[in-house]
Amino acid sequence: MEFKVNSIELEKLLNKIIPAVPTRTPMPILENFLFEIKNGLLTIYATDLEISLKSSINVVSDENMSLVVPARLLYDIIKSFPDTTVKFLTSNNKLNVITDFGTYTLGYIEANEYPEIPSFPQKTDEDVQEISMNGLELKKAFDKTSFAIGKEEMRPAMMGTLLELSDEGLRFVATDGHRLVNLLNKKITSQGLIQYIVPEKAISVLQKILDEKDAKLYLSKSHISFKLSDIELITRLIGQKYPDFKGVIPLENEFSLQVKTKEIHDAIRRMLLFATTSTRRVKFSISASAIDISAEDIDLGSSANESVMCKYNGEPLEIGFNAGYVNDILSHMLPEKEVVFKLNSPTKAAIVVPSEEKETEELMMLLMPVRLNS
Amino acid sequence: MEFKVNSIELEKLLNKIIPAVPTRTPMPILENFLFEIKNGLLTIYATDLEISLKSSINVVSDENMSLVVPARLLYDIIKSFPDTTVKFLTSNNKLNVITDFGTYTLGYIEANEYPEIPSFPQKTDEDVQEISMNGLELKKAFDKTSFAIGKEEMRPAMMGTLLELSDEGLRFVATDGHRLVNLLNKKITSQGLIQYIVPEKAISVLQKILDEKDAKLYLSKSHISFKLSDIELITRLIGQKYPDFKGVIPLENEFSLQVKTKEIHDAIRRMLLFATTSTRRVKFSISASAIDISAEDIDLGSSANESVMCKYNGEPLEIGFNAGYVNDILSHMLPEKEVVFKLNSPTKAAIVVPSEEKETEELMMLLMPVRLNS
Repeated sequence: MEFKVNSIELEKLLNKIIPAVPTRTPMPILENFLFEIKNGLLTIYATDLEISLKSSINVVSDENMSLVVPARLLYDIIKSFPDTTVKFLTSNNKLNVITDFGTYTLGYIEANEYPEIPSFPQKTDEDVQEISMNGLELKKAFDKTSFAIGKEEMRPAMMGTLLELSDEGLRFVATDGHRLVNLLNKKITSQGLIQYIVPEKAISVLQKILDEKDAKLYLSKSHISFKLSDIELITRLIGQKYPDFKGVIPLENEFSLQVKTKEIHDAIRRMLLFATTSTRRVKFSISASAIDISAEDIDLGSSANESVMCKYNGEPLEIGFNAGYVNDILSHMLPEKEVVFKLNSPTKAAIVVPSEEKETEELMMLLMPVRLNS
Repeated sequence: MEFKVNSIELEKLLNKIIPAVPTRTPMPILENFLFEIKNGLLTIYATDLEISLKSSINVVSDENMSLVVPARLLYDIIKSFPDTTVKFLTSNNKLNVITDFGTYTLGYIEANEYPEIPSFPQKTDEDVQEISMNGLELKKAFDKTSFAIGKEEMRPAMMGTLLELSDEGLRFVATDGHRLVNLLNKKITSQGLIQYIVPEKAISVLQKILDEKDAKLYLSKSHISFKLSDIELITRLIGQKYPDFKGVIPLENEFSLQVKTKEIHDAIRRMLLFATTSTRRVKFSISASAIDISAEDIDLGSSANESVMCKYNGEPLEIGFNAGYVNDILSHMLPEKEVVFKLNSPTKAAIVVPSEEKETEELMMLLMPVRLNS
């Protein structure tokens, strides 16, 4: 087999595919790319058996064939070349990569040893939803929600982001039980209500490869395919029931605390330096015009106290939070704007929302309080 | 006690002092700064008992006093402030840091519990050498040599850079037994020959704080003081005899191999991808006009081969090197220039020098070969 390709084009392609190559795996063959050449088109695949990535480029080749090559070594050597022609040649069960600089020889494996790649179901009788969405808008939705994805293997349904398609819109939800993010895109609607849980790995890869071009999503019961301009990601879905997040969202939070995002965020970052490392507890003492924010580390004998201006319409309230979680939430709000904390009592979940929103979007974060000592 | 200081000025100062604060130490008190206020001047010290850093700024204060404060927590909180006035106030055995944003309370320790700081010997009878040198020139000398400093605790003399002052100039030498760097600055000369071994820690800190301003060095038998424009570093010297590096440098290397630095360096970087990880062995097969460079990993079944143009005046030669060490050496040569390898036989040390040099400087690197299989 022999084919030729430009080094820079191949590097760009491998750079997009390599995020699917697992770094630690009990199946070493997954540390390879699958190369398929068909009628002058080279299609490269990588998978960790949960997600798969594939993309193609034109190459100069007379034959059709497939082979499995070491992903990282190939990527590193291609990356090391300036703009040049790279010739691939198989001989004596070795793959020779030939450039003007020299010859690099890699072992390869027959394509039939490569495991089956997650692929989108071809059955026509299944109900497949189709969505088209701007790539950056989709990336932003993942960016705003993915930090709250659960990490506990015992609660697999929470180890991904929920995509819920209904007549309200396309909803993105992530929660780890301590905080919850709920982002509704009202521009994309659908009859009925369908839920898909996309695993964290697929989302973290998509955050790297989504760009300003449109993305097409094909959603089935078991898989989603994300077709971007030059690459396709297919992921298995988490086959679990997502927890009833709507039931958790309090409706009686009538106390509204409005504050400049940057001011409270700066204060929280300083509190994190002083809060006990294990609990990261910070106390909000809220009155009509100011929040008194405090943290202490009894072991170190250090403490901090700040006052942040606010507008508050409720009864004076003392409530504790994990400062790390507050920091996460504020990091996903626009710093130049204001946020509103909707509160009820020291033991009820707080709701955090931006003070202004686009008509087509609704963002809501929920944060569980922590018990105060006093 | 009470004093006031600008947050940005204090941050700049702490940023320069904090490199001397050890991150892991069996003596937790070293994780603090020593603050000394005398007649409106705040002097801040940090030490790991091998090196010490000190610097001063003017503060608004009516009293003289000293105290010991947690270094990282103080640095982090000061760093978190925009340009503002910071008031320090001791009360009830606590240090209060007060700004417009809030109040931060830290524990502090009495100054008399702080250990003795390495200081420059005050005896007038000792022979103290004094050198003045441009800060960036000194930094460059450390940058070019420090990578070869030994890491073996069993050979303490090699765990620093040798500064040798003689009528030839100021020489910087570092070696770990596998490679050696020898840089001579001919502008600074002295009668006699004196050697000082500066420990690696002092050098790595100096690399961070040296700038374009002049540095004054005071060299005694036991300590060196580096006085920069706004900070002083004092280090103990390694009280050992430096190995006889001059005896190691071969004089009979008459084969001269001249090659473009970037070309051979690019080739070596690619060889590193293919060389066996444990040995990183690369083979140079040298003829009059080209070096054939090759590496292989027998376990992985991968190999690489490149040809690099050269000018060579010796007999055809095959010699092996550790590609990691060749890479280190080439990383410290100017990429746009040429380097000369001076060779003798596959078992004798190679000398690597730049093909052109300033009149006031001599740089020489020595590299031990490794045995080839064949």
